[in-house]
Amino acid sequence: MRAVEIIQKKRDGEPNTWEEIFFLVQGCLDKTVPRYQAAAWLMAVYFQGLNDSETAALTSAILESGTVVELPPLEERRRRIDKHSTGGVGDKTSLVIAPTVAAAGVDVPMISGRGLGHTGGTLDKLESIPGFRTDLTLSQFLQGVEQLGTCLIGQTPELAPADRFLYALRDVTATVESIPLIVSSIISKKVAEGIDGLVLDVKTGSGAFMQELEDSRWLAQALVAAGRSFGKDVVAIISNMDQPLGLTIGNALEVREAVETLKGDGPADLRELCLVLAGHMLVLGGRAADLDEGIKQAASQISSGAALERFRRVVEFQGGDPKFIDKIDHLPGAVHLYHFQVPETGYIQELRADLLGTAAMLLGAGRDQVEDRVDPAVGIELYRKVGDFISSKDRLLTLHYNEPDRLDAALPLVSRACRIAPEKPQLDPLIQDTVR
Amino acid sequence: MRAVEIIQKKRDGEPNTWEEIFFLVQGCLDKTVPRYQAAAWLMAVYFQGLNDSETAALTSAILESGTVVELPPLEERRRRIDKHSTGGVGDKTSLVIAPTVAAAGVDVPMISGRGLGHTGGTLDKLESIPGFRTDLTLSQFLQGVEQLGTCLIGQTPELAPADRFLYALRDVTATVESIPLIVSSIISKKVAEGIDGLVLDVKTGSGAFMQELEDSRWLAQALVAAGRSFGKDVVAIISNMDQPLGLTIGNALEVREAVETLKGDGPADLRELCLVLAGHMLVLGGRAADLDEGIKQAASQISSGAALERFRRVVEFQGGDPKFIDKIDHLPGAVHLYHFQVPETGYIQELRADLLGTAAMLLGAGRDQVEDRVDPAVGIELYRKVGDFISSKDRLLTLHYNEPDRLDAALPLVSRACRIAPEKPQLDPLIQDTVR
Repeated sequence: MRAVEIIQKKRDGEPNTWEEIFFLVQGCLDKTVPRYQAAAWLMAVYFQGLNDSETAALTSAILESGTVVELPPLEERRRRIDKHSTGGVGDKTSLVIAPTVAAAGVDVPMISGRGLGHTGGTLDKLESIPGFRTDLTLSQFLQGVEQLGTCLIGQTPELAPADRFLYALRDVTATVESIPLIVSSIISKKVAEGIDGLVLDVKTGSGAFMQELEDSRWLAQALVAAGRSFGKDVVAIISNMDQPLGLTIGNALEVREAVETLKGDGPADLRELCLVLAGHMLVLGGRAADLDEGIKQAASQISSGAALERFRRVVEFQGGDPKFIDKIDHLPGAVHLYHFQVPETGYIQELRADLLGTAAMLLGAGRDQVEDRVDPAVGIELYRKVGDFISSKDRLLTLHYNEPDRLDAALPLVSRACRIAPEKPQLDPLIQDTVR
Repeated sequence: MRAVEIIQKKRDGEPNTWEEIFFLVQGCLDKTVPRYQAAAWLMAVYFQGLNDSETAALTSAILESGTVVELPPLEERRRRIDKHSTGGVGDKTSLVIAPTVAAAGVDVPMISGRGLGHTGGTLDKLESIPGFRTDLTLSQFLQGVEQLGTCLIGQTPELAPADRFLYALRDVTATVESIPLIVSSIISKKVAEGIDGLVLDVKTGSGAFMQELEDSRWLAQALVAAGRSFGKDVVAIISNMDQPLGLTIGNALEVREAVETLKGDGPADLRELCLVLAGHMLVLGGRAADLDEGIKQAASQISSGAALERFRRVVEFQGGDPKFIDKIDHLPGAVHLYHFQVPETGYIQELRADLLGTAAMLLGAGRDQVEDRVDPAVGIELYRKVGDFISSKDRLLTLHYNEPDRLDAALPLVSRACRIAPEKPQLDPLIQDTVR
């Protein structure tokens, strides 16, 4: 088998066989296929796509490049259900959902990535908690899931090593934005964790990877099909990402908002999304008969304080100091605040998640390059959302910053993010669709 | 400037700037752009193409990666005109044309490649002449052109080094078949040789890189436009490559046929193509007012013996023993002959150049891999061409071979190459179009 012929077939729109795709992926890891051939194949896939069988082959090849966590028989254990989001601005749902669902009796083995572009990822948010460690070993992680029902860590070297290789290559060859490549990357890592089911939150709108609802639906369908081909229970929701989720963007600010939500407060949209995602997880986890019952169970874990208590124990298990849960100034805070007012009075028509996400990144809350360091304290705190009335004397938001240069870089984006008009706008629903 | 952004622009169908293309090409050579990024860009170019300005930029960047031979003012020297063919089966025209045009007073600085796929290239053919060296230095080459009006060598390290880098990468990443990449590769090398003009022979048909006339015309137009953007006089003909050119395929066999043609004999189609190409070269070289006059001058160089005499001197200059010119058994000969008869009687409708070319390669006359060695003695000798009548007792061709295993591999292709029917077929003209 020759790599150049595998590339040529894909280039010409012919499907690659399972053997060909395994040959490429294994060859990348054992260095018998040079990176320039893998790069050419990835770009050919960008243009020609992969059919369902090829996507399943690529997912399997990535999965089988490393350890796959084996699950004991179902009768001897709780079900394991993970959640994955395609990435949005202000999305701190994992921090709320993992302890809530675990408290309700379903295990949540959560292995996350770091954020690139826009704002920090779940790992960056957790690492703003003093002492919190996301670099546990695979066996510590599995022990955490066993003991507390959940554990939240970063990628481990054992699971799906081919994904790290391919993702790094895609990142420098402009081949990130390909549905079958995204699907194989997500599903291989989630299957490797050892799960029974998966709830996907595919974002749509200005701050999402897919801006059009139709594209998001394609991605959701492809993810569900690929997960199901591995015998997993999968459901995907499509949620709106035209404006940021909740009222905070930035790592410590988002942890604070997650804690408020676990306490039963927190912004309505964040709470709604957390409850719906947790509800689906409880259905897949066999704890609830339908979504309504799942949502009710999740809400009661929050109102009883069980979810917050579980979060406290997870923080302690992962080396964090839980004092911030009761007294928020134990989280890092920025030195400077800049209060931003709008020049007009009226209803907020638009609060662009992409611009606010980039502004938060420029303040230091996210990464432009992999090697950039994230500042846990900085970010954006909103006081209004789309559909709210605002007068020209009111604060729209506050920028938390440490370096004046960064404020100067972020402000022009912030001013472009908000549009105000006299009429109350039509509001899009937060959850736009469900794909099973 | 970041390579990933250059790739992404091309991927999304936006044109790259001159600066971006120079950044990539120079980065390939000084290793600041890794090969995997170059490979991804090449595949994006395969799908999105390059416009005229981008093609000119790529050609310039390749050209300026090395030495460009400087020409003295026109009044102090003969004009220099080269010929380039896009590659066909049985094409030995360079061996006839170079001494013929040089004898008529136009310099022909001919730097050729080796064959890959199908049969050997011009260098492989010349190297079947005992002692003949194609690895002269650039200054020896220029001395040969100065002294004898022509010299035929392989690529030198000084000229267009980026082309060797990019071609090697294209070869292993399935990005050879892209018109702008082909154009930039050919034109950069030819301009680097130091030429006033260029005659291109773009093949079309089963044995050509472009099988459809329309595609060949596109390639011809792109080559002419790119050559002209460097201020060169360029003309392209499109010639038929449905059947092999002449009656021989294989290195020593083709040298023999070239010598016969220089002696005024040789197959009619080979002679016709040589005279037309030489005629165009003499027009561009300022020796003939029009093509007819150019053809007449070329024919008279052959009938007078001047062309053959010039060939003899070139062979000697390049270290070869010219005895084969008078006595053909001084060229390598194969140990075995296999005479192939057809099962039917009738007119030959088809004699597929691609299958016969591959059969000759399987006998050892060409390369499947760059590192394969070519056997100068083996090949195919034809006795009939398309349109000829043949009876089932007649030989269609003879296979010259050294290894019986290779004969077994080649024979099935040979039997599929010929189609016979009772009616005399319509013949396509050898020269199908001229592009200026």
